[in-house]
Amino acid sequence: MPSSSRSPHAETFPGGTPAASQIFTTVLSQGPLTRLELARRAGLSAAAVTKAVRPLIESGYLVEDADAGARPALGRPANLVRVDGGRALFIGLKLTGDEIIGVLTDLCCRILLARRLPLADRDPKAVLASTAEIVGELLTEADGYGVRVVGLGIAASGDVDRVEGVVRYSPFLEWNDVPLAELASSVTGLPVTVDNDVRALTVAEQWFGAGVGLADFAVVTVGAGIGCGLVVHGRVVAGAHGVAGEIGHVTVDPNGPLCHCGNRGCVEAIAADPAIVARIREATGVEVADSAEAVDLARRGDAGAREAYARAGEAIGRGIATVANLLGPELVLISGEGLAAYDLFAEQIRDAFAAAAFGSAAQCDVQTRPLPFEEWARGAAATAIQSFITAPN
Amino acid sequence: MPSSSRSPHAETFPGGTPAASQIFTTVLSQGPLTRLELARRAGLSAAAVTKAVRPLIESGYLVEDADAGARPALGRPANLVRVDGGRALFIGLKLTGDEIIGVLTDLCCRILLARRLPLADRDPKAVLASTAEIVGELLTEADGYGVRVVGLGIAASGDVDRVEGVVRYSPFLEWNDVPLAELASSVTGLPVTVDNDVRALTVAEQWFGAGVGLADFAVVTVGAGIGCGLVVHGRVVAGAHGVAGEIGHVTVDPNGPLCHCGNRGCVEAIAADPAIVARIREATGVEVADSAEAVDLARRGDAGAREAYARAGEAIGRGIATVANLLGPELVLISGEGLAAYDLFAEQIRDAFAAAAFGSAAQCDVQTRPLPFEEWARGAAATAIQSFITAPN
Repeated sequence: MPSSSRSPHAETFPGGTPAASQIFTTVLSQGPLTRLELARRAGLSAAAVTKAVRPLIESGYLVEDADAGARPALGRPANLVRVDGGRALFIGLKLTGDEIIGVLTDLCCRILLARRLPLADRDPKAVLASTAEIVGELLTEADGYGVRVVGLGIAASGDVDRVEGVVRYSPFLEWNDVPLAELASSVTGLPVTVDNDVRALTVAEQWFGAGVGLADFAVVTVGAGIGCGLVVHGRVVAGAHGVAGEIGHVTVDPNGPLCHCGNRGCVEAIAADPAIVARIREATGVEVADSAEAVDLARRGDAGAREAYARAGEAIGRGIATVANLLGPELVLISGEGLAAYDLFAEQIRDAFAAAAFGSAAQCDVQTRPLPFEEWARGAAATAIQSFITAPN
Repeated sequence: MPSSSRSPHAETFPGGTPAASQIFTTVLSQGPLTRLELARRAGLSAAAVTKAVRPLIESGYLVEDADAGARPALGRPANLVRVDGGRALFIGLKLTGDEIIGVLTDLCCRILLARRLPLADRDPKAVLASTAEIVGELLTEADGYGVRVVGLGIAASGDVDRVEGVVRYSPFLEWNDVPLAELASSVTGLPVTVDNDVRALTVAEQWFGAGVGLADFAVVTVGAGIGCGLVVHGRVVAGAHGVAGEIGHVTVDPNGPLCHCGNRGCVEAIAADPAIVARIREATGVEVADSAEAVDLARRGDAGAREAYARAGEAIGRGIATVANLLGPELVLISGEGLAAYDLFAEQIRDAFAAAAFGSAAQCDVQTRPLPFEEWARGAAATAIQSFITAPN
């Protein structure tokens, strides 16, 4: 067992090769597995599996147990390889414009603890102080587990360059070019991975959620913004320059409302919560304060409010159809806090998707998947796990 | 040397494993390479390369030569592994609404001969008879090379299901659910691969063209239709249900002209050649017969004609920005017969792309790449080569 001291960068993963990372990820998301099945799913030879698994077992990241249930009548029992979740801990944070949601997870990305901290100020310095505070709390709690926290993942909305560790542009935080990974590492002493929040959530869905085993799927999030995480050929799309999945900036109406990106009629400018609230105020004259009041008004049957949600649903459905027409995913998951109003636009999403999907792209399965912000923070922890297990030795 | 008899399915590739296909493809597109460099680029161990290369050399698909230029002063010369292009022949066909363009290629997808055959009739039976005719001509020519033709690739526009070998919907051919692979195999005696024409062109660009070495790029084609081939994570996107890259059906104006897909204001309904011709007739009253006359009128300065091209350019630019915002490719290549009018809408494409690209997605390199239909037919041959080298033994 390693000590629980917090000396940074001291713990390294004994992988170091793409095959080792791939095998570990396969066990992590699909295990426990027999070595035979592991080789099959990872598309590698039995010899390659043996070679990669040995140091991972020796260092305690993987364990091999006899599978009591599958013991054959004759011959050797089929051993199962699984990840020892207790071998290392991770912290994941999701930043919104109003609060930080933090989770402590084990190596299997199971949430051990969750905390929330309101953000009084969006200035990078203030957010960094709050980051240090919530991470400090979680590290103190982690001491009780006797296992080291070896990585921190931070997820924020907008244009986030994971490779460089920079938040290039985040509308809700009102940030431009903030080198968040470096700053957060300096105040927490942990290796830090920053990523777009929807991409982070998509990693968690791919490894542990509704996307396990799927080569091509999308996560579309609705709420304060409209985002999208894409998995193509079994990997989350990051974009050559850090931008990808910007379904929120698909144009649905060139004469529509102005978007913060400078264009008109983007999905986000019609279907994000603030856009719906603004539209309802304009159409009804009722000064609804927020989404909760907007939903109330629409549920009470107000025609103007209902029309604003209908329009939002149509924009979201068109956005999803655009993703389906370009990439042909097997599955689209709709998530995000905006699902609270789903009854108000589900039909329009479905109809607009069906109308705009081209040919057999319409066969794509579109499902809703409510996930609280703790799951987004878990996604951030998943990106930290990803960095940990893919780092070169 | 194998005989030149045409017995179908007689020739099989001694690969049979994903590693062998991957190694062969790497040599095919990036070779000649030393074994060391090959291992590095394929992300495999030297042992895996040795194991995969041996049967490919024994059967004559790969050859290993001393590299005279790179001979070191001391020690063994660095041998280079390359594909023996003369080891097998392939035929590629591109179907348009008016003609079949056919090429005979070697295993390196070099065009040895090209033929064109006008299509008097778009009925599947008539197209099949013409297919048999042009393939027969090319097979006769192939006899002179003393090497067997081992595969036929056919590329058509629209919703083409490569796995099932079915053209589900092709607007220019006016086809629905035509099992083209099976039909063409029965009249030619060759194993047949059918694919969407732009995807086939994208395979050729990825292996032999402007996309060599790029993990993420797109080919956008303009002309009779507007198409798009996408390479993500180093592989051409096929879509879970056979549809992908349908940039032509990205909506740019919900109040725009009706598209054949049933929606309004799709990129294709504004920017495809027939849409531009229709718009010019409507705006100017001049009964231009085709794209050539439309281009002439615009180049002579007619305001209505120029406006139709400007509008088309804006739609194409928005479509490309949608691809960039969702996938963040390194490079977008614009090709297709519509490039003949490029001077009339280049500026609008550029401006609309710059305006609609989100954040650093605007850094994507957008280039034009004129490619005649023979190159599209070569793409079809590339899909046949792909099928040949990935077929299980």
